[in-house]
Amino acid sequence: MADLPQGFWSGEQRSLARVISLVENEMPEKDEILRKLYQHTGRSYILGFTGSPGAGKSSLVDSIIREIRRRKQTVGVIAVDPSSPFTGGAFLGDRIRMNEHALDDGVFVRSMATRGSLGGLAKTTKEVVKVMDAFGMDWIIIETVGVGQSELDIMYIADSTIVVLTPGAGDSIQSMKAGIMEIADVFAINKCDMPGADTLALEVNLMLDMQDDHIKWRPPVLKTATINRGEGIEELLGAIETHRDYLKEKGFFEARRKERTKNETLDIVNYQWQRLVRKQVDSPGRVKDLLDKVASMEVDPYTASSKIIEWVIADLK
Amino acid sequence: MADLPQGFWSGEQRSLARVISLVENEMPEKDEILRKLYQHTGRSYILGFTGSPGAGKSSLVDSIIREIRRRKQTVGVIAVDPSSPFTGGAFLGDRIRMNEHALDDGVFVRSMATRGSLGGLAKTTKEVVKVMDAFGMDWIIIETVGVGQSELDIMYIADSTIVVLTPGAGDSIQSMKAGIMEIADVFAINKCDMPGADTLALEVNLMLDMQDDHIKWRPPVLKTATINRGEGIEELLGAIETHRDYLKEKGFFEARRKERTKNETLDIVNYQWQRLVRKQVDSPGRVKDLLDKVASMEVDPYTASSKIIEWVIADLK
Repeated sequence: MADLPQGFWSGEQRSLARVISLVENEMPEKDEILRKLYQHTGRSYILGFTGSPGAGKSSLVDSIIREIRRRKQTVGVIAVDPSSPFTGGAFLGDRIRMNEHALDDGVFVRSMATRGSLGGLAKTTKEVVKVMDAFGMDWIIIETVGVGQSELDIMYIADSTIVVLTPGAGDSIQSMKAGIMEIADVFAINKCDMPGADTLALEVNLMLDMQDDHIKWRPPVLKTATINRGEGIEELLGAIETHRDYLKEKGFFEARRKERTKNETLDIVNYQWQRLVRKQVDSPGRVKDLLDKVASMEVDPYTASSKIIEWVIADLK
Repeated sequence: MADLPQGFWSGEQRSLARVISLVENEMPEKDEILRKLYQHTGRSYILGFTGSPGAGKSSLVDSIIREIRRRKQTVGVIAVDPSSPFTGGAFLGDRIRMNEHALDDGVFVRSMATRGSLGGLAKTTKEVVKVMDAFGMDWIIIETVGVGQSELDIMYIADSTIVVLTPGAGDSIQSMKAGIMEIADVFAINKCDMPGADTLALEVNLMLDMQDDHIKWRPPVLKTATINRGEGIEELLGAIETHRDYLKEKGFFEARRKERTKNETLDIVNYQWQRLVRKQVDSPGRVKDLLDKVASMEVDPYTASSKIIEWVIADLK
């Protein structure tokens, strides 16, 4: 039986790092470890930071970390890195900068590469969140680089989603990625010392006015800056806490967590099923042969699919 | 037994429209219809057009359609519409403009909304491609709006992927979405009459020089314009055909099609499995009860998952 390293429960970061690696690398003991962690989860509050590359998300997350630490609270950070050969460099720089917190036991930063498997990333991110949660982090921050689906998927993981915008970075409302405005619980207009910040804040507020959904939470629009001593950071964390209180008061927090837990369970059901199918596909046998027949158009995929389900199930008995 | 409308095989667009709606709306006869279509598929060549919103993709696709029609070939177009309340308007305008081809039997345009289900979209897109393919279209064009994962997913559906860039639209290489450069088989620098087009083309070429992968296809960078009588459209279609010939000569076309067919079959396996699970989750019974226990943290998701798989299978006997 796989067990958690002793140091994990006493707050040793080295043990936390080891458990996360084990999860990320899909080690055989993973399921057992996650099963054991499970009853200790549910206490962290999860933030998602998203926005265009160049919006200064990493610096802003850095400032938020400092504010959290000033309050003597702890935080785990998951930086989702798309590992593009073209943007990877700059992002790596950000990661190095984050090492400022390397000697602080109350902060743990983990970079995760998404190359080639965004769907897989969502799954692993959720699992790493569970590990950090069980470890006892007060806050967990997921920072995505402005890329593809992960940017929108963050709303399924985070309790509060912060969309970071910057004046001048092409972040006009028109050029905004579809869907990104709708997932925001809080807007941060970052680099607010740059020209155009007020206009951008105004545009976002006008856009929010257009949404006639008055019953729902209206995302506040905050101005932030991270250079010098920073600006608006305390207020940003304050706005996040107001959103958290709102979710808890209305019962949304509890309801959403329950819904997510159910969905996560069904994801595991599907994942375990796919593993069973994959096992048959990867080894010589009738499933593999049938797929070859589909590829050469001798059998259609629908007839083959029913047959494969039948065979995978038969093999379980 | 579900059957295809008679007109479908004689090239009636009305029948094509009806079959597509049936697939999109997940009607009960869908699987049976797709099964019957299957043996008639595999003859269309599939293009994916992607790029930032505002890059002029729709106009470019329009011009390509005209070029295809000039050659007396047929084309089906699937416009993937993210349906954001904030960008939806402009995009709808594009769709209306496409109506220029409404009376032409050799062109069929279908808009598909993605709202809230990007994963689902990929599945439906693939199915609609199959329908258009069986209908006998020479070309199928999938046009995505620059949004989320669908933009990258297109490479899994298209035979050739065309990335459309525009000078001045914030399309500098730095701000480029991660992953988007890697999926291009052909680059179109659109609105090439605008200042900065040459610089952008140069930047893209420099970036391609950086990739040391000399064995692979090097995407050509073409300059296009769609205003007045257009520019570079014939050349763009020519470059696409060169890529097609390359894929076919090297055997990649055949190999990739086979691989995709296998993956599509496994997708159907998973989809049919998920439908079985969903049936149990949605009706009162032990699966539903167990999920409630997971939500209230009485049972962990891993233990529950194994139990659910067992029960779903037991229910099949």
